[in-house]
Amino acid sequence: MKKLNIIDENAFNDSHMTRLLVHDSPYFKILNFNFRKGQELPVHSHDIEGQVSIFVLEGEGEFLSKDKRISAKRGDILISDISEPHGIRADKDMRVLVTIAPPI
Amino acid sequence: MKKLNIIDENAFNDSHMTRLLVHDSPYFKILNFNFRKGQELPVHSHDIEGQVSIFVLEGEGEFLSKDKRISAKRGDILISDISEPHGIRADKDMRVLVTIAPPI
Repeated sequence: MKKLNIIDENAFNDSHMTRLLVHDSPYFKILNFNFRKGQELPVHSHDIEGQVSIFVLEGEGEFLSKDKRISAKRGDILISDISEPHGIRADKDMRVLVTIAPPI
Repeated sequence: MKKLNIIDENAFNDSHMTRLLVHDSPYFKILNFNFRKGQELPVHSHDIEGQVSIFVLEGEGEFLSKDKRISAKRGDILISDISEPHGIRADKDMRVLVTIAPPI
């Protein structure tokens, strides 16, 4: 059993998105990304089995897919196959928690 | 790809904890629990392989284990083996996101 606080552990950075590896095990990989307004995780995909969840702790922006944008705000959770193109872009400073199972 | 908002989809209830099944797949199971002050998910465990993460979206309380209490606040994430006794108790109205992999 372990605990950490993603707000305490991972700050924003004006020049790029920040990334915190929260947990990695045979069961899932958990990451926290922080985005200043305008920063993004470009649309990408991996040709493997599994799913990813993206949960918005704070801020606003958009979940990105190959051909559309889906609004993202606090409390939103997006679930996508890892093989389906997905990304994130912030309109207001945004903290998200990403869970990948099985881990990549 | 699907999106939902756990704040819009799951209200608090004065008489008991509320539970929303967010997602269930071969890869992970995702749930949202809301606790009014004083409500709790009692300490429990399952004798199976896998891990659970508990992420605090809002509120304050404690993560419970067999013999100790660990403070819980916004941005905290607890990771536990499913086989290790774990629970949650709220001191202030609390929304948490729980991810179980592989799904139970």
